[in-house]
Amino acid sequence: MMTLDEKFSALEAENAPGQEVRQFTGNLNDIMRGNKYSGVPVDFSHGDVDAFPPIPGSSEAWKNGFDKGGNQAYTEYRGAARIRESLARRLARFTGSSISADNELIITPGTQGALFLALGATVSAGTKVAVVEPDYFANRKLVKFFDGEIVPIPLHYQGSPSENGPDLNQIEDAFKSGVKVFVFSTPNNPTGLVYSGNAITEISALAAKHDVTLIVDQLYSRMLYSGEVYSHLRACEIQPENLITIMGPSKTESLSGFRLGTAFGTARLIERMERLQAIVTLRAAGYNQAVLDTWFQEPEGWMEKRIREHEAIRDELLKIFRAADFLTATPQAGSYLFPQLPPLDVEPNTFIRLLRHQAGVTVTPGTEFAPGYSDSIRLNFSQDHAAAVAATERIVKMVEVYRK
Amino acid sequence: MMTLDEKFSALEAENAPGQEVRQFTGNLNDIMRGNKYSGVPVDFSHGDVDAFPPIPGSSEAWKNGFDKGGNQAYTEYRGAARIRESLARRLARFTGSSISADNELIITPGTQGALFLALGATVSAGTKVAVVEPDYFANRKLVKFFDGEIVPIPLHYQGSPSENGPDLNQIEDAFKSGVKVFVFSTPNNPTGLVYSGNAITEISALAAKHDVTLIVDQLYSRMLYSGEVYSHLRACEIQPENLITIMGPSKTESLSGFRLGTAFGTARLIERMERLQAIVTLRAAGYNQAVLDTWFQEPEGWMEKRIREHEAIRDELLKIFRAADFLTATPQAGSYLFPQLPPLDVEPNTFIRLLRHQAGVTVTPGTEFAPGYSDSIRLNFSQDHAAAVAATERIVKMVEVYRK
Repeated sequence: MMTLDEKFSALEAENAPGQEVRQFTGNLNDIMRGNKYSGVPVDFSHGDVDAFPPIPGSSEAWKNGFDKGGNQAYTEYRGAARIRESLARRLARFTGSSISADNELIITPGTQGALFLALGATVSAGTKVAVVEPDYFANRKLVKFFDGEIVPIPLHYQGSPSENGPDLNQIEDAFKSGVKVFVFSTPNNPTGLVYSGNAITEISALAAKHDVTLIVDQLYSRMLYSGEVYSHLRACEIQPENLITIMGPSKTESLSGFRLGTAFGTARLIERMERLQAIVTLRAAGYNQAVLDTWFQEPEGWMEKRIREHEAIRDELLKIFRAADFLTATPQAGSYLFPQLPPLDVEPNTFIRLLRHQAGVTVTPGTEFAPGYSDSIRLNFSQDHAAAVAATERIVKMVEVYRK
Repeated sequence: MMTLDEKFSALEAENAPGQEVRQFTGNLNDIMRGNKYSGVPVDFSHGDVDAFPPIPGSSEAWKNGFDKGGNQAYTEYRGAARIRESLARRLARFTGSSISADNELIITPGTQGALFLALGATVSAGTKVAVVEPDYFANRKLVKFFDGEIVPIPLHYQGSPSENGPDLNQIEDAFKSGVKVFVFSTPNNPTGLVYSGNAITEISALAAKHDVTLIVDQLYSRMLYSGEVYSHLRACEIQPENLITIMGPSKTESLSGFRLGTAFGTARLIERMERLQAIVTLRAAGYNQAVLDTWFQEPEGWMEKRIREHEAIRDELLKIFRAADFLTATPQAGSYLFPQLPPLDVEPNTFIRLLRHQAGVTVTPGTEFAPGYSDSIRLNFSQDHAAAVAATERIVKMVEVYRK
C-alpha cells in the first residue's frame, strides 16, 4: 500500500484543468521563440459559461430555493425529496429505465462528487478496477486514493467507426482475472467517442456474468451530434447487479458554478454513497439543489440550438487541425477535441506552458488522461466561436514554430 | 483492515442529524403512552435558519458572484484568489496569527468538507488518531473510513470550570504511545465546553514535542457567551509543525445552505487537501464562494445581537432542564445543550423516536458523539425562542411519562 506521501504525489494536480495559475513560468521567456501573439486569450481547459451561459432561469431557481429558507438549506444528505421526485422521472425518461426517487437516486456536489462517492463505496485496498485509457483524469486518481489496483483497458478512437471503441476482449480478460469494478465515461472524455450499442450491451452482459460493478459517467450524453446514436447501459436487457449511472448539468447546461450532480442505480450502493456523503460534504449545497428544477426542462429549442452551435465550432476546429495534419478524431458528442501533435523540439509540457505564456491559449496535457499520451492535448471547445477559431489557429502556428 | 461492508456499517447515518425522515416509525403507536402533544414541531438536530436568518446581504453577494460568470464559476480548487486574499486577513485578525492567502488557506464545501480533507490528508491505514469523547460524530467516522485507529480521550464537562476539560495526562500518554493526529472541536460539540487557555497551551506544546498533527475545529468560536474567554491554538507560542484550523459560517452565521467552510494552517497540508479536493468535489460551489465576502464583515452590532439572543435561549432552557433534575452543563459557547436524561422504561433510541413522533421534537442521540452516551441527547437551540421553550417543556413532560 502507498504511504500518504506517495499517495498525494500520485494526486499531483498542477496540470489539472483550472490549476494552471499555480504553475511556475519563470524560465519560459528564455526559451520562447519570437514574440507573444496577440488575440483574445482562450482557456480550453474548461467550457466558457459566459459564451454559453447557464440554463435560462437558473439564477431565479436558486433564489426560490434561498427564499424557501430552512427546508431548502437542510435537506437529507441524498438531497431534497421533492427535487429527487421529479428529477427521477425526467432522468428515467432520458435513460430508458425507471428510477426510485426514494432509494435509487442521490444528488451530489457535481458529478465529481458522484464519482468520488461511487468509487469510495466500491473500492478499497487491493480492489481491482478496470480503467479506460484515455479517460477522465480523476478515475485513475480515485482508484489510487482508495488503494485499488488499476487494470487498464485501451480505447481505440483514431480509426474508423467500426474499429473504434473499448477493447472488449481485454474487458472480458480483465473481468475474468478478478476485476470487481469497471469505471468509464461515454461519451468518452477526452476523445468524444460514444460507446456503440454493441459495446454497451456486451459490457453489461460481461459485468452480469462476472459480477462486476459498473460505474458509467454519462456527463456529456445529451450533447449528441447529428447522425449519432447514444446507448444507455441502464436500458440493457441483461444487467449486472451493481450499476451506477452518473450525470450532471455542469457541462452542456453550463451549471458548473452550482456544483450539482446526480448518481442513480443500485439502491444498496446509493445508500453507501449517502453514508459517505454524510462525512464528506453532508450534501450538495441546499439552495443550489433547487436549480435542478431547470434541468431536463429547458426552454423549447434551447438544447437543440446549443448542440447546433457546438457542432459548428467542432467542425471548424477539426478543419483547422486536419489542414495542419494533426491526427484528430471526430467527437460524436460532448465538447472535447483530443488532437495529436507532431514531434516538437521542446517537451510537451513545456510546449503547453509556452502555449499559455506566448499565445494565451490554455489546454490540458494528454498525460492527464492516461500515461503515454504526452503528444496529445485536450481542448474543451465550448467557447466563443470566433475566439476558439483564432486560438486554434495560434496553436497550429506555435506548433510550426516549435516543430522538430 | 475493515471490509467495505464493515466500513459502511460503521458509517451508519440513520440517526445522524437531519436523517430522521428516513427512520422507520411503524410500531411507535403500539408503545406510545397517551396522546400526541400539540405545539409547534421543533427540529433541534440543527439550527433554524428561518428563526436566525443568514447574514444580511448574503443572497445579494451570491447574485454578484453569479453575475461575474465564468471567473466565479471556475476558481482554483482551493477557492478564488481574490476571496482568499481578504478572508485570510480577517481570519488572521480573529485567530491571532497571520495566514498566507496563497499557501495556507483553502475554501471547502462546508466545514464538513474541511474536516474530511484534513483527515484524508493525514490519516491512512493504521494511523493512530486521538479523538475526544464526546465530540462531533463525524470525527470518529472519518478515522474509521480512512482505516485509522481511534485512541479515545475523555472530556470532563459536568464538573466545575476548574475540573472541566480534556484529560491532559491521557493526551500526553496517547502522544507518547504513537498517536500521529489529534482532532477535536473547541467549543466542543455537543457540550459547548471551551478549552481553557492552559489546556490549549499544553496541547500545542505536547503536539510540538511528540510531532503530532493537530486538527482543531473552531466552528463555534465566534458565539462566545458573557464572561467567557476563547483561546486560539494558532496563537500559541510553542506550536507543532502541522496545525490545521477549521472554521466556517454555517452555524452562528446561518450560511449552512451555501456549504462553505475554510481550513487554514500548514502549507504542506493545505496543498494535500487541495489535491484531494480535486478528486472529491473539485471546489466549493463557485458562485457560493462569493458569499464569504459577507463573513467577518457583518453589519455593526449584528453578531452581538445574535449572541445575546442565543444566550437568552440557553439560559431559559437550562432553567427548565435543571428544574427537572436533568444534569446539564452550561455551554460556554455555541448553540448546543447536552442534557443527561434520567433512567427510562424504554430504550433511549426508542424514546428519541417517540419524542419526534409524539411530541414533535427532534433531538440527536448522545451515542452519535461517543459510545456510552446513550442517556444524553443533543439539542441545537438556535431556534425560535418561544418554540424552543415549549418544545423543551414537552421533552421534560415526555421524560416524566416514560420515566422508570
